[in-house]
Amino acid sequence: MTDHALDFALKLEPLGEGRFCGRTTPEYWNMGGPFGGITAALLLRAVLDHPQRRGRPVAQTVNFCAAVGEGGFEIQVRLVRDGRSTQHWQVEMIQDGRGTVTTGSVVTGAERETWAHAPAAPPSAPAPQTVPVMPTEGRNAWLAQYEFRVMEGRERFDLEPPGETASAASRLWVRDRPDRPLDYAALAGLADTFIVRILLVRGYFTPVATVSLTTYFLADEAALVRQGTRPLLGVADARAFRHGFADQSAELWADDGTLLAVSHQVTWYKE
Amino acid sequence: MTDHALDFALKLEPLGEGRFCGRTTPEYWNMGGPFGGITAALLLRAVLDHPQRRGRPVAQTVNFCAAVGEGGFEIQVRLVRDGRSTQHWQVEMIQDGRGTVTTGSVVTGAERETWAHAPAAPPSAPAPQTVPVMPTEGRNAWLAQYEFRVMEGRERFDLEPPGETASAASRLWVRDRPDRPLDYAALAGLADTFIVRILLVRGYFTPVATVSLTTYFLADEAALVRQGTRPLLGVADARAFRHGFADQSAELWADDGTLLAVSHQVTWYKE
Repeated sequence: MTDHALDFALKLEPLGEGRFCGRTTPEYWNMGGPFGGITAALLLRAVLDHPQRRGRPVAQTVNFCAAVGEGGFEIQVRLVRDGRSTQHWQVEMIQDGRGTVTTGSVVTGAERETWAHAPAAPPSAPAPQTVPVMPTEGRNAWLAQYEFRVMEGRERFDLEPPGETASAASRLWVRDRPDRPLDYAALAGLADTFIVRILLVRGYFTPVATVSLTTYFLADEAALVRQGTRPLLGVADARAFRHGFADQSAELWADDGTLLAVSHQVTWYKE
Repeated sequence: MTDHALDFALKLEPLGEGRFCGRTTPEYWNMGGPFGGITAALLLRAVLDHPQRRGRPVAQTVNFCAAVGEGGFEIQVRLVRDGRSTQHWQVEMIQDGRGTVTTGSVVTGAERETWAHAPAAPPSAPAPQTVPVMPTEGRNAWLAQYEFRVMEGRERFDLEPPGETASAASRLWVRDRPDRPLDYAALAGLADTFIVRILLVRGYFTPVATVSLTTYFLADEAALVRQGTRPLLGVADARAFRHGFADQSAELWADDGTLLAVSHQVTWYKE
């Protein structure tokens, strides 16, 4: 535990029997609630803190059911299945007066060596220190908790409508700010730092929300330790925006070319 | 309800209060249990059959916790959140003596018209009738319930090890066999017809299992009706195989170029 804003935001107190309590923090505030990535990291942290947990995170799905309010929350963790290769967990975040605001599932798996193969190649990128850091002043608080060095993709979406339709693709270096050694909870948060694509495409603000987020963790803990505090290379893109919903997929790469995580989400938009 | 094997496999009897019962069918049998796509379709069907369900499926995650045994099962559906734009559902499949074998979540959303944009273009493909149908004789039963016309990607994986490492990518036309009008439950099944990629890559059988499957439904019901019984264009690929787990992503396109669904999964492999 450090005094990093992330560690402070991920502070959970065990209440026993798979129950934990915590509080939202202003540093990770988004528009009408906490940044989704911090909620994902909290649900993962609760599973990782469970005394029966074995192995590392393999998959996480988070369903954002309702706005999380400012203040306290409880996270309830249930081990549904304790198998030889995997453990299956169900997680819920509950708030007084709001009921269940988030549901999720986590799969953990044993660390072991197997045949390995990496058909996907990392995207090309100049060294992070050669790319300017995106300014985050005057924007939603959570953005300032990350250092974004954007190589491709619109950085701002405060144009007057109608903006020019732009690409949904981003390529950037990203890490926690101030820098912090990478771990799975941080990675779960980083996986959601790719702005909801419609804002990039249209260039102006319109009500949006992540509906469901799924992250696959494809690296062992040693790869995270190797990466340490250095920026991750991220890419994201969307396939289709239609009938008020859109998908997007992102990849997070270590700077040695190891794919650390892939993350997919479906987002809601109003107009 | 027709006498199609899919409709027979998806037959659920309501037990009241979000509980349904059904039975596995031999037609969709895989190696050590039912084909994962039929389980996904069943969980979706249970949500769609729930009297409180509004709107169409938007997202589904299925966690394959344990092998589903031959015979009866119960599906329990819980409406966690009934919002204006989305409904959030939790689903579990339970078997006597086995407990919870599958968990899942489903998000449904209202059908409505909005701004639309399709940055992803459909893959190129020759007309389906010009591509030979993949033989499925002597293989796991479920394969015979689909008509695969493979344009790219290894079709068999019964080589003696060591096979030559091949691409993880597939491009194919696929539909239910015999052909059947497309609906969301069928689409949920089709989304899992992309063979676990490690078998294609290595070319020989090795123990594998889908751990978690997430499908986003990006089309309204009208698009499914338009597609009717004609083959869908599918592509799939994997990014990384490491430490006993691998990811894969697939897209299912209507033949008019509409992206109907994207599907992601993380798979376990033994060696």
